[in-house]
Amino acid sequence: MHLDHVGVATDDAADLAALFADLFDTEIAHEEAFDGLHVVFLDVGDGDGPYLELLEPQTEEGAVAGFLEREGPGLHHVAVATDDAAAALAGAEALGLELVDEEPRPGAWGHDVAFLHPGSTGGVLVEFVEH
Amino acid sequence: MHLDHVGVATDDAADLAALFADLFDTEIAHEEAFDGLHVVFLDVGDGDGPYLELLEPQTEEGAVAGFLEREGPGLHHVAVATDDAAAALAGAEALGLELVDEEPRPGAWGHDVAFLHPGSTGGVLVEFVEH
Repeated sequence: MHLDHVGVATDDAADLAALFADLFDTEIAHEEAFDGLHVVFLDVGDGDGPYLELLEPQTEEGAVAGFLEREGPGLHHVAVATDDAAAALAGAEALGLELVDEEPRPGAWGHDVAFLHPGSTGGVLVEFVEH
Repeated sequence: MHLDHVGVATDDAADLAALFADLFDTEIAHEEAFDGLHVVFLDVGDGDGPYLELLEPQTEEGAVAGFLEREGPGLHHVAVATDDAAAALAGAEALGLELVDEEPRPGAWGHDVAFLHPGSTGGVLVEFVEH
């Protein structure tokens, strides 16, 4: 497994993407509307990730909007790429970790994703992503 | 520039390192006592990073101890590698960002580091690291 991206909750993805593009001398790799979010990926690797994923809620519903209300903008999750997200979930469950998703589901950028509950992973919201 | 590591504040670096090593099928790449912290790096890349950096305060003093008290354990900062941390700082200042460090200083693993204030970077604590 390897680090795929770091998720950042923001109330202005376009503005933060422009800042990070300047600051880190990089570009927007992908941008879409997904699941009530404006999602922007910036490459902070060698052209094929890892990425910073900026997440801006478009409504007051949903997990990211709740996070912004509770915690304010900032680091939200860490995503690790795997060839088999279902197997990664089974491995996490075997380690006694609490799953948010019982099975992989469609995520941003057309990938399958599954989250683990931060309460069992040191306060870190962990996402498995299968490309 | 490219993503060097993601910092995680924890009250038990050894325990969390063991969990992440199992969960992400990786190993401890480096471990040291630095600046009042127990610091553990886990490789979540191709053998040369990027890394997860686990930070466990050994005293009640310092920025990470303060973070743990305010926010609890979890994601702490994002570090981006640069060939020239002083130039990166100058670039950040030219963008109007607020610096924590006016110049690079010795950081963990023998690298020079400098932090930007999260208040001007979307709530994300950004570190430049020069190897």
